[in-house]
Amino acid sequence: MKLDDTQKKISSVSNEWMEKAKERLDDLTKPRGSLGMLEELAARFVAIQEEIPIVMPSKEVFVFVGDHDVVAEGVSAYPQEVTSLMVRNILAGGAGINVLARCVGAKVSVIDIGMKEDLKDEEGLIRKNVRRGAGNIAQGPAMTREEAERAINIGIEMAEKAHQNGAGMIATGEMGIGNTTPSAAIFSSLLPFDVSEVTGRGTGLDEQGLIKKTDVLKKALDVNEGALGDPISALASIGGLEIAGICGLCLGGAAHRMAVMVDGFISSAGALVAMRLNPLVRDYLFFSHQSLEKGHRIFFEKEGIRPILDLSLRLGEGTGAAVAMQIMDDAFRVFNEMATFADVGIEPGA
Amino acid sequence: MKLDDTQKKISSVSNEWMEKAKERLDDLTKPRGSLGMLEELAARFVAIQEEIPIVMPSKEVFVFVGDHDVVAEGVSAYPQEVTSLMVRNILAGGAGINVLARCVGAKVSVIDIGMKEDLKDEEGLIRKNVRRGAGNIAQGPAMTREEAERAINIGIEMAEKAHQNGAGMIATGEMGIGNTTPSAAIFSSLLPFDVSEVTGRGTGLDEQGLIKKTDVLKKALDVNEGALGDPISALASIGGLEIAGICGLCLGGAAHRMAVMVDGFISSAGALVAMRLNPLVRDYLFFSHQSLEKGHRIFFEKEGIRPILDLSLRLGEGTGAAVAMQIMDDAFRVFNEMATFADVGIEPGA
Repeated sequence: MKLDDTQKKISSVSNEWMEKAKERLDDLTKPRGSLGMLEELAARFVAIQEEIPIVMPSKEVFVFVGDHDVVAEGVSAYPQEVTSLMVRNILAGGAGINVLARCVGAKVSVIDIGMKEDLKDEEGLIRKNVRRGAGNIAQGPAMTREEAERAINIGIEMAEKAHQNGAGMIATGEMGIGNTTPSAAIFSSLLPFDVSEVTGRGTGLDEQGLIKKTDVLKKALDVNEGALGDPISALASIGGLEIAGICGLCLGGAAHRMAVMVDGFISSAGALVAMRLNPLVRDYLFFSHQSLEKGHRIFFEKEGIRPILDLSLRLGEGTGAAVAMQIMDDAFRVFNEMATFADVGIEPGA
Repeated sequence: MKLDDTQKKISSVSNEWMEKAKERLDDLTKPRGSLGMLEELAARFVAIQEEIPIVMPSKEVFVFVGDHDVVAEGVSAYPQEVTSLMVRNILAGGAGINVLARCVGAKVSVIDIGMKEDLKDEEGLIRKNVRRGAGNIAQGPAMTREEAERAINIGIEMAEKAHQNGAGMIATGEMGIGNTTPSAAIFSSLLPFDVSEVTGRGTGLDEQGLIKKTDVLKKALDVNEGALGDPISALASIGGLEIAGICGLCLGGAAHRMAVMVDGFISSAGALVAMRLNPLVRDYLFFSHQSLEKGHRIFFEKEGIRPILDLSLRLGEGTGAAVAMQIMDDAFRVFNEMATFADVGIEPGA
């Protein structure tokens, strides 16, 4: 299923099931609403899944990998080669996302969607390269519109496969040296917001580096100014291939009525493109955490979204999403396993 | 071991092991500090446990149960009998704390430390009743100083037993209709803070109820004014038996070098008494979450503490502590299982 059909297939979650979920939550042996966000998460999941009790979902984290020629401008603390080394690390099971995915029992899939290097012989890598690295956005577009659409479609395809394999909850993740820069550009263009206010330190820039990054962002928005009119052309001009893949995963997840756990800053940029393409997708998205990146808070404020966690994470890969999926599991088990007032003979009270 | 000896036994956590932990964290394949609070939690636990890799701790949640005659003043949305019904529910495994403790593999122990009703035949209940309910603090003291010390010692005893049984992390929990009122009184007296600013809705008071509760708190602080000079007499005058038990659990946990996960508003009141008795205890305490109770935020601000979670929980029982212990486990596994830069051939960078 391609972008257009996927968008058409997305519908609202079920209000009827949301109400049924709330009724059940109010019957559980606790003051109404006293499990706060756990109750909200469970209710929204029921509205997506349409089952009571909740069928505990199997989970898959998708790590989209892309490079960014904008690193030539000095916007990252790490050299571009680290992208490949970290991909090998993830495939070998030693990265943060591997550990945290194991903690929640989620599968990890790694997709080369836009890596510079062609890792031909890496077992387990899903090879879907659209182009060998996004172009330097400070000097021109990241990719063509057609490439952006292909990358979105790869995300959709991943969601589709996860659905076929029985996943009930999927998570976004990414790896790509330099990718906080295009993400900040996306936020700046789509929220919109002034670039100097959304620029953060990425994986560890100093003051000097931060000033440079802000300049690069201004250049990127300047040079691509004519092409920022709609979400897909903005994504193509100032985004990145992994961001496009994440956008597609969000759309595909919603189309197949799965919960989509969105990781941090970069993943939120992909999710924002998806929400601009189809506002209904939002019902299916769960935002895992508030990252340390400055622009992330502004995104949440502007969109009126409350993230599940605030643990000062800024690693990416899907690590925050994996941690938040444990909170989801907690919510589901509370929903399924707690006794009701009727069970124990207490009047529901307040 | 009694209160005095326990206090003397508490020493600072190991700076040397804290440094070793930080070195290891900086060697892991991620930008320095990019796993934020997960790194801080792991490092502090290493400074307590003094082992690398971390030995995954077994866990026990202690639910201290006490009643409060101040409910006669109309400060709770539920009648006092609910305390016993909820104790039975917890013993039967159907309460929120049971579900969330199962999610993290923690044992749940329930202690009658100050219940009104004597549940003689309830299997599994740890019967350590000090007195049949705290007195009405709006009219006089909650208990005598001697009773407060006995209740603290029961908390210490529970920590001791957990330590003997091999627990590496213990958690506080409580049940007691009306117990946000004495907790607010404790915060007001020990932080200190104006009572009208720390009064919250407990398990579900309306506007009218809130005004009444504030009045009751003012009365309680007034009538007991002469006896608020030191932490134990404040606890005896305006506290509660479960709050004293929690205070003891914090002290005993620190004395036996275990991590103590503190639940919400009421547990924090017990922890505050412990910190006022011995400031060193703080190194061993992990504050699980920011509850919806108004005064809780003020407590964290005044003490300069950052809670792990903010999920709008207001149930108590130890539920927030159980959820946060999963985050601790995540932190430990990241610490133990991630590959190092040397493993994968990346320069550490920023």
